[in-house]
Amino acid sequence: MKRKFKLIIEYEGTRYHGWQVQSNGVTVQEVLQKALQKITKKKTSVVASGRTDAGVHAEAQTAHFTTSSRMTPHQFLKALNSVLPHDITVRQVEEVPLEFHAQKSALRKTYRYTLLNRDYPSALAYRRCWFVPHPLNVNAMRRAKTCLLGRHDFSAFRASNCEAKSPVKELTQLRISREKDFIHLLFEGNAFLKHMIRNITGTLVDVGKGRMAPGRVKEILDSRDRNQAGPTAPPQGLCLLRVDYPDKKKKTAPASRTVRKKAQK
Amino acid sequence: MKRKFKLIIEYEGTRYHGWQVQSNGVTVQEVLQKALQKITKKKTSVVASGRTDAGVHAEAQTAHFTTSSRMTPHQFLKALNSVLPHDITVRQVEEVPLEFHAQKSALRKTYRYTLLNRDYPSALAYRRCWFVPHPLNVNAMRRAKTCLLGRHDFSAFRASNCEAKSPVKELTQLRISREKDFIHLLFEGNAFLKHMIRNITGTLVDVGKGRMAPGRVKEILDSRDRNQAGPTAPPQGLCLLRVDYPDKKKKTAPASRTVRKKAQK
Repeated sequence: MKRKFKLIIEYEGTRYHGWQVQSNGVTVQEVLQKALQKITKKKTSVVASGRTDAGVHAEAQTAHFTTSSRMTPHQFLKALNSVLPHDITVRQVEEVPLEFHAQKSALRKTYRYTLLNRDYPSALAYRRCWFVPHPLNVNAMRRAKTCLLGRHDFSAFRASNCEAKSPVKELTQLRISREKDFIHLLFEGNAFLKHMIRNITGTLVDVGKGRMAPGRVKEILDSRDRNQAGPTAPPQGLCLLRVDYPDKKKKTAPASRTVRKKAQK
Repeated sequence: MKRKFKLIIEYEGTRYHGWQVQSNGVTVQEVLQKALQKITKKKTSVVASGRTDAGVHAEAQTAHFTTSSRMTPHQFLKALNSVLPHDITVRQVEEVPLEFHAQKSALRKTYRYTLLNRDYPSALAYRRCWFVPHPLNVNAMRRAKTCLLGRHDFSAFRASNCEAKSPVKELTQLRISREKDFIHLLFEGNAFLKHMIRNITGTLVDVGKGRMAPGRVKEILDSRDRNQAGPTAPPQGLCLLRVDYPDKKKKTAPASRTVRKKAQK
């Protein structure tokens, strides 16, 4: 009998060429698929909520796989973590209805971009932030970002090789907060174009530095021209925090496929 | 004219064979000395508050060096960080009286040992904690540690190759706190024997697991016998947080050597 499992995965992207299997380097998807093959003795594909770029991290990427294995979610959790490398961890395994799809069922994604804004870098945080020694005006960045909220054609912030069908996406939240020397940009939306968050961040950093007026960001958005926007912020500052799905209670899952609470904790 | 500078250094110990220069691997001291030599064109030795073991981190190790260079503290900060690798950062440079000695003037050191206590590891924190999947009883660990506070002969928790003159040290504080899945052990004392914190931590983890009664720790301490204590906790969970020195206001430093506030921030 076919069963479907949802995974919540944490990874440090530093060593990987992103999520998606590629010919030119090791990816998170490939490592997970090999781990599942080792455990189930069957070739298994793992489908994520979406790709992440090379060097981008995840606190909680979501993925699914289908299997005929009789293992419990808790057994999968233990077995996967015992064969995965240190920089990829499975945080949760849950059996889900066969209709569940990690990408198509996703309602909302939350990403955080982290800047380190002081005049010396950090040896303990360098893998997880973009070091910007130039003092940033956070209020100017906040004024600049408001025009980006809502549903827009984000072509101006889209990578040239982006494969999304439409450049129209909805950015439901963009919060900018300072915590000591770190500045966090929290992005929430239904989906994002390739490099969209990093291109918006690079542009807002230009505003924070005073190189660009806050009002200029609206003009850039309206231009739909990538050449107008600021530079692409480097990948290591970006982390996928969470993927949200419709409330399970509203779904009608057969009793046999009910979520096993034991592995959820 | 000879001048003395105090450095506050952050490092991720993962790649290093500890602080102290060694023949069999790269150390933090060696990298810093080479960086200073590159900047001042003179061979310069850097003296720290004390050694840290291979793989142990520091948020704020303190060190000093003597130079005839005319560079300002701020110039040293910029120059050092521009030549140091990502995993070693100079956080602060300060000109200090020639009497200052990073090790001999130190009053107190604070270390934190971090445990990750849940049934799956962490891809984003694995370099900075000891993953202990067995549930730990923090209250039992707290009862066990009280006997360690104060001035004692800590031979039972001393590495066999420790070079300290006396095994008697004063542990002024040991706080154990839980923050979600992480347990932090905060150690404060005037000085520590080699592996003392990691041996105490390994022993307290045995108590937390229920393998050892809390009262047993007092017997181990009194035995002065290393074979009685628990295992040495791995280095990556340990981080030197702070080194404290006597209040500068109480020192009488010649005006010419007064601390330059600019670089202090």
